[in-house]
Amino acid sequence: MEADNNDISTIDKLRLAVQSEDRQLAHSYLNELHPSEIALLLESLPGKELDMVWNLLDPDMEGEVLSEVQDSVRARLLEQIHPHELVAITRDLDSDDIADIIQDLPEDMHDSVLLAMDVQNRQRLASLLSYPEDVAGGLMNVDVIPVRADANLATVSRYLRFLARRDGIPEQTDNLMVVDRDNKYLGLLPLTTLVTSDPEQTVGEVMVQEAAIHPDLPASEVANMFERRDLVSAAVVDDDNVLLGRITVDDVVDVIQEKAESTVRSMAGLGTNDNVFSPILVSSRYRAVWLGINLLTAFLASWVIGRFEESIQQLVALAVLMPIVASMGGIAGSQTLTIAVRGIALGHITSFNARVFLNKELGIAVINGSLWALVVAIVAMFWFDNRGLGIVIGLAMIINLLMAAIAGVLIPLIMNRVGIDPAVAGSVVLTTLTDVIGFMTFLGLATLYLLN
Amino acid sequence: MEADNNDISTIDKLRLAVQSEDRQLAHSYLNELHPSEIALLLESLPGKELDMVWNLLDPDMEGEVLSEVQDSVRARLLEQIHPHELVAITRDLDSDDIADIIQDLPEDMHDSVLLAMDVQNRQRLASLLSYPEDVAGGLMNVDVIPVRADANLATVSRYLRFLARRDGIPEQTDNLMVVDRDNKYLGLLPLTTLVTSDPEQTVGEVMVQEAAIHPDLPASEVANMFERRDLVSAAVVDDDNVLLGRITVDDVVDVIQEKAESTVRSMAGLGTNDNVFSPILVSSRYRAVWLGINLLTAFLASWVIGRFEESIQQLVALAVLMPIVASMGGIAGSQTLTIAVRGIALGHITSFNARVFLNKELGIAVINGSLWALVVAIVAMFWFDNRGLGIVIGLAMIINLLMAAIAGVLIPLIMNRVGIDPAVAGSVVLTTLTDVIGFMTFLGLATLYLLN
Repeated sequence: MEADNNDISTIDKLRLAVQSEDRQLAHSYLNELHPSEIALLLESLPGKELDMVWNLLDPDMEGEVLSEVQDSVRARLLEQIHPHELVAITRDLDSDDIADIIQDLPEDMHDSVLLAMDVQNRQRLASLLSYPEDVAGGLMNVDVIPVRADANLATVSRYLRFLARRDGIPEQTDNLMVVDRDNKYLGLLPLTTLVTSDPEQTVGEVMVQEAAIHPDLPASEVANMFERRDLVSAAVVDDDNVLLGRITVDDVVDVIQEKAESTVRSMAGLGTNDNVFSPILVSSRYRAVWLGINLLTAFLASWVIGRFEESIQQLVALAVLMPIVASMGGIAGSQTLTIAVRGIALGHITSFNARVFLNKELGIAVINGSLWALVVAIVAMFWFDNRGLGIVIGLAMIINLLMAAIAGVLIPLIMNRVGIDPAVAGSVVLTTLTDVIGFMTFLGLATLYLLN
Repeated sequence: MEADNNDISTIDKLRLAVQSEDRQLAHSYLNELHPSEIALLLESLPGKELDMVWNLLDPDMEGEVLSEVQDSVRARLLEQIHPHELVAITRDLDSDDIADIIQDLPEDMHDSVLLAMDVQNRQRLASLLSYPEDVAGGLMNVDVIPVRADANLATVSRYLRFLARRDGIPEQTDNLMVVDRDNKYLGLLPLTTLVTSDPEQTVGEVMVQEAAIHPDLPASEVANMFERRDLVSAAVVDDDNVLLGRITVDDVVDVIQEKAESTVRSMAGLGTNDNVFSPILVSSRYRAVWLGINLLTAFLASWVIGRFEESIQQLVALAVLMPIVASMGGIAGSQTLTIAVRGIALGHITSFNARVFLNKELGIAVINGSLWALVVAIVAMFWFDNRGLGIVIGLAMIINLLMAAIAGVLIPLIMNRVGIDPAVAGSVVLTTLTDVIGFMTFLGLATLYLLN
């Protein structure tokens, strides 16, 4: 495809330069891009071109790009980087970003990277590496500025100026963390308070009491907390209230983004490593499993149809119309299921109000079921000139939509209670049910009332 | 359902108190909750109980709760509030939150609410109300602290102390906005810089050049920008670079959350106002349209099957097996479609690399198609003791999976180019295609090779 070079973005110009293997041109475009844009580009390049762009990158950009790219791309890049080089290019990153990168390394390389660091950094990172990625501890960084409650604000300001000259102030520092002599967390000192209060006051007099987070809290609950309370950063403390680190909103935004991504993916039966340009065999494997599960349920539906072979032979119109009943049940059921899955995730549906929700969904099924059953019945009657057939398909459809509503409410509630993620498994179970019930009621009613 | 009262959350205790209409108990639990938790509760209550809890609420909580609840609940509550009362309870909210609430009012009430405000607030709000909710201007608030480039930092600190006493510092103020005499935006003065720099320096000497946002930028791009650049707040400027306001990360988090929510909903054919406890008629209407569209496509598939009535009459096994071919195509196609829709939204797929993506998806279709076609062929052969039937269904399945891969790549690319949201319409078009092609190839091949 041709395009006018003036109209397209720097990313696409770079893409063209890479495709034509013009390294010099590619390098010049690369310097115009933000690390996050380079990460985006790398994620959208096939393997060979990806390696070429990575090798053209200036070493002082590599660390930030590495911390921004998706896991699958990062894994590929990490294979090409020597531990000492990795330590050098990640030196200026936030501690949680370094920990994330190390966690993506093969186990046997963890230690060589940690050993290549100086002692202080190694100790800071070791504490972060002990938490899985999906809990508060895994989101935490140790780039906090602790202050004592008995210090006065003028002292704190001097200390900050000293820190700024020595290490720089960590990004997204909106609060300093107030601790006692044993590093136990007492509260927050917002920078806005520091700037606007009398310098002679003590930290303890002006600090804010804000609840801290336990490192084992699931990442999704951390996200809910940040969203509901409009936080920029929050303290993380252990069982003894000792300050371990802090979580900043940029990491929470990533959690929310990834959670949304993973709901959409799991509803389609896609693995987490299945991206636009991931290797064919990686993508095939997870998808094959999902197709296999679906095949089993399809055979189940076929088996149900097989029970009615004789009826179909007598009245072929049944074979022509039966997919309609099954398909409408599947669509209506997915609508209820989606509302239920999101309602449970957001805490809107609990065992105390599930019945009200079920009644509402049944009401919708009655209205929409009757409406479209009538349409289907009339079409079927005229198409096959068979009044009984119209009545049977209409009835089957109303029954299937009612069952779909019940299944759409109960399946996620039951799965949630036994600890299965309804976003992953809910739709397979639901469509199996609506297929089986759809074929069974339609073919069964037809056999009973239309044939002899 | 019974539960031990000690084990359940305050929200559920409150729910029980509301159900048993114990107002006094409900009121005491209500005081233990954060406004965001009360909003969550209101969203999960049926209408009558919702009104009861709202009336129990302390007036000084009402504003924040109103700004936190979902649009559909808010609309219901707003019907019960008098304009003057609304002005009183929203007085302490951020300007963007007040604008959001006013935007949810019926047109004829806008003016009465604005007139009930004092002049200064009215002017601030009028500028916000001129932007739609889904662009940067709609996310913007006017709670900025502007400073001049030629002021020195000591003056800025004094000014901040004055502001803190008079109005308080707005939440999520991590930067002051540097402007010239004509209110044109020059850059940012981070609070961390203010705290750690020499008070004798001028703002201009230490300020940071950070790109500002145009009010017409789509909200989703604002979100990408915040996410990629780890921002807490950013300036909004008009065409002449005049500072209009700022966007803060809390509103961006809401955008990301809502975008994720809306992708999941639109893939299931649900309207934005269709919530767990929205009125039956509201939910039914949008869903009915979606079911109707699906019914049309189902009739199309039925019509295709109808072309082969004679073949089915000769070999009923065709009717038994045909849903398998269509269903596997639909599942495989949705997998490709989902990857493509997300890849386009994230900028991973452009017209410059679409062909590489298509080749990859075709490769996966060949692998998974062959694998499961073999399984289906063997099962069909033994089930119906018919070798030709096995070969035909295997072939039909491979063809349908290849077509599904092509459709899954091309449909979203084409829809995106002509401006249709592929997350909404993509799956209907795709499954229509996989159904039609699945039935046509299977029944067609069978008619050609198995029957006479």
